[in-house]
Amino acid sequence: MTTKDELDAAVQQAQVAFLAARGAEPDTRAGWLEAIADGLDAAAGELVPLAQAETHLAEGRLQGELKRTTFQLRLFAQEVRRGEILDATIDHADESWGMGPRPDLRRMNVPLGVVGVFGASNFPFAFSVMGGDSASALAGGCAVVHKIHEAHLQLGLRTAEIVVTALAQAGAPAGLFGAVTGRDAGEALVDHPLTTAVGFTGSTRVGRILADRAAARPEPIPFYGELGSINPVVVTSQAWAARRDEILTAYVGSYTLGMGQFCTKPGILFVPQLDEDSTQVLRETVAGTDPSPMLTTGLAEGFLHARSAMAQRGLTEIVPGGQGEAPAPALFATTVDAAVQDPAIVREEMFGPASIVISYRDEAELTRGVELLEGQLTTTVHAEPGEQLDELVDVLAARSGRVIWNSWPTGVTVSYAQQHGGPYPATTAPGTTSVGTAAARRFMRPVSYQGFPESSLPAALREDNPLAISRRVDGEWQLAGGAK
Amino acid sequence: MTTKDELDAAVQQAQVAFLAARGAEPDTRAGWLEAIADGLDAAAGELVPLAQAETHLAEGRLQGELKRTTFQLRLFAQEVRRGEILDATIDHADESWGMGPRPDLRRMNVPLGVVGVFGASNFPFAFSVMGGDSASALAGGCAVVHKIHEAHLQLGLRTAEIVVTALAQAGAPAGLFGAVTGRDAGEALVDHPLTTAVGFTGSTRVGRILADRAAARPEPIPFYGELGSINPVVVTSQAWAARRDEILTAYVGSYTLGMGQFCTKPGILFVPQLDEDSTQVLRETVAGTDPSPMLTTGLAEGFLHARSAMAQRGLTEIVPGGQGEAPAPALFATTVDAAVQDPAIVREEMFGPASIVISYRDEAELTRGVELLEGQLTTTVHAEPGEQLDELVDVLAARSGRVIWNSWPTGVTVSYAQQHGGPYPATTAPGTTSVGTAAARRFMRPVSYQGFPESSLPAALREDNPLAISRRVDGEWQLAGGAK
Repeated sequence: MTTKDELDAAVQQAQVAFLAARGAEPDTRAGWLEAIADGLDAAAGELVPLAQAETHLAEGRLQGELKRTTFQLRLFAQEVRRGEILDATIDHADESWGMGPRPDLRRMNVPLGVVGVFGASNFPFAFSVMGGDSASALAGGCAVVHKIHEAHLQLGLRTAEIVVTALAQAGAPAGLFGAVTGRDAGEALVDHPLTTAVGFTGSTRVGRILADRAAARPEPIPFYGELGSINPVVVTSQAWAARRDEILTAYVGSYTLGMGQFCTKPGILFVPQLDEDSTQVLRETVAGTDPSPMLTTGLAEGFLHARSAMAQRGLTEIVPGGQGEAPAPALFATTVDAAVQDPAIVREEMFGPASIVISYRDEAELTRGVELLEGQLTTTVHAEPGEQLDELVDVLAARSGRVIWNSWPTGVTVSYAQQHGGPYPATTAPGTTSVGTAAARRFMRPVSYQGFPESSLPAALREDNPLAISRRVDGEWQLAGGAK
Repeated sequence: MTTKDELDAAVQQAQVAFLAARGAEPDTRAGWLEAIADGLDAAAGELVPLAQAETHLAEGRLQGELKRTTFQLRLFAQEVRRGEILDATIDHADESWGMGPRPDLRRMNVPLGVVGVFGASNFPFAFSVMGGDSASALAGGCAVVHKIHEAHLQLGLRTAEIVVTALAQAGAPAGLFGAVTGRDAGEALVDHPLTTAVGFTGSTRVGRILADRAAARPEPIPFYGELGSINPVVVTSQAWAARRDEILTAYVGSYTLGMGQFCTKPGILFVPQLDEDSTQVLRETVAGTDPSPMLTTGLAEGFLHARSAMAQRGLTEIVPGGQGEAPAPALFATTVDAAVQDPAIVREEMFGPASIVISYRDEAELTRGVELLEGQLTTTVHAEPGEQLDELVDVLAARSGRVIWNSWPTGVTVSYAQQHGGPYPATTAPGTTSVGTAAARRFMRPVSYQGFPESSLPAALREDNPLAISRRVDGEWQLAGGAK
């Protein structure tokens, strides 16, 4: 475990490295991200078995996750080179500006400083040591101190070593990335005066405790927590009539995937009615799944506790589910009426292989059910061609960061238009995403330079655009390469 | 004073109006902003005298501020029509995406909902009832409940009436804008379950109390507070040698402007040395100013208290300053050494006509002085042509939202590249601005639509781009009108 003095030293060193790296060209910084990606790819043969041993996740899944992780680093490198994360904006001096003469003003995003990142248990690569938070903070020009999750400590320590070595070989300042362990170090990291922001992926309970801690500092800092989500799925009556069994089979596949240990697991399926036939389809599909041990015994215990608490709310147990460290998937059924009586039914997350099928009688009742929902990472609708569901989609969009049409929430691509976030309790910062290229903006803030001589402006804001990046100039976009 | 029940009714009605307005076309919404601007312009002859009576501010200043306010509304209307505030981003499905097949994903910003806005005492138009926070929240598609500042209650009530009438005549849903009064209503506004974000301009003390309140809600919400700032100005030795008297005269003009009641008042001037000559210039310039009553007796009392507390820190009183409701400007002098011994000298804001001249011996000492500074809205440097001050500018940019070269911080233009924000305690949200077109993004959050049929997508994200807005498509910008 990292002592308080060691934590302080890591943050201090990160600050020194942050300052030393401040002047690095975008191309240099992008090269650091690529060096980390190369280092991790080269170590796949060592890292994947380490992850298997600590997480019980399958080799194929872990290889895919590592591929996602290094792809993400390279995509951020590309965004850094393109200058997209800078949001460079130029207003030339304008004597005739409508409210009175305007000075020359040029704005770009600058890095915040040292960022604290907390790894998640359920993605040992993609949301851990060099996951989305670390990658986006480094892309934004920050230094990172990462608190390794106890659930995969050896993997975390080894990954951190590889990252540190890769950065050193690429010429990055020592300390630009550091790793610490233990709860005390995590708390001290949130409290440290030099920490400027925190990225966190984990439970609502722990996330809220740390968010409150960040807000209570003498100098409060942004806390980007990706917390809990139920990820409700709505099946329209037309879709239900057209392809009920196909939907139910895919639903079971999605909620049991990876033992339900995804933040995007569909925890609720709204359906028009659940007769004996469809119940039988569900029972058979669940029976065909192959339970594996959960990530940790603590998570398994927490899941069984949450499942049991849900059962006590009077739901029908379609499939009771198993016990132990590898519990067989469970499935509940209830009605919108019951959820209206007891909204906790649609608000308590069961992190693991369990989900609830909720029957609605008509569209008005469906709306009542959906309106009970708190903030979500995702909402989903299954509908037939030609169905116009604008009102329903509005209600879903008002409660989530991503609305999915005729697919399933598990599976979160890393791209330009991705939004992995949502209103509380899905996240503590609804305006931001923790996946996709926009994630880097969380760890930057805008600075305007007013009346600067050309030679003293940052390169991104110089008149001759030496970085050849896209910028908004006097309100009009000017694309990279001079096209307009 | 608004009762709790009345506050609740105002927020409920705002929520109904928000939902009713959700489907409004950008052109319609822009028209609402322009209708408000027209209504306020038409009422200038009534509003400016009301403001004069309550604020003691001069007619010319108030007319200019009203012009700024309506210009701002019209600029936001233009941004709404252009679709810039939507950040529309499209990723087409891609089977060959590096981490595995990518679904069709389309992201845009959507409004948060009901926004609570607190008016500031020092800008009865531009940061008040229909100031930057209200205008940017309406531009973003939100409904606004505004808490009128007690310092200009009659003006606030009348302005709100004009806004409500203008919105009604333009066909906006009733309740899209509402106004409340009194501290209890303000607190209840921050607490209300339907309030989704708060905009605040005011003191660090009150801002922090409300920010803590917003963070402590069962469902925490973003609190955008623009709080205190000292706005330090650095004069290089070359600039001092070249144009000392010109700088000192302009400095006095800037810190005494509007009785120093600007969030961008220069509260510190770092100079190489302050001899008897330059002190005499300062004394004479200050003597030539014409004090007027401060905004409120409470502000005058607070200022005199802060000035007296600063005097007790052992600074030299170059100009002692006056007493009463219209205190003559005061000026202190000290050294970096003294500030290193007692950093409160550079951290305690005196909101009113007082400032501190701090002498530095060499560049190393200047850096030590500047590094004592907390977060600022602005920092400024006065330098001569050819001076290369990259390190100093880096240190200033690390502590502020706007860095100014050879000008003065008072005067904040409304434009695309403006950044009015900065690290705490300048604001509670360093990644955002409360002035300029980017301010609208504070009251929006991104939503991604995955796999949607064309007919169910919001217009901004449709393949044929019916709004003709600029968008990023598969990572490449596509400009309005189809140019690429």
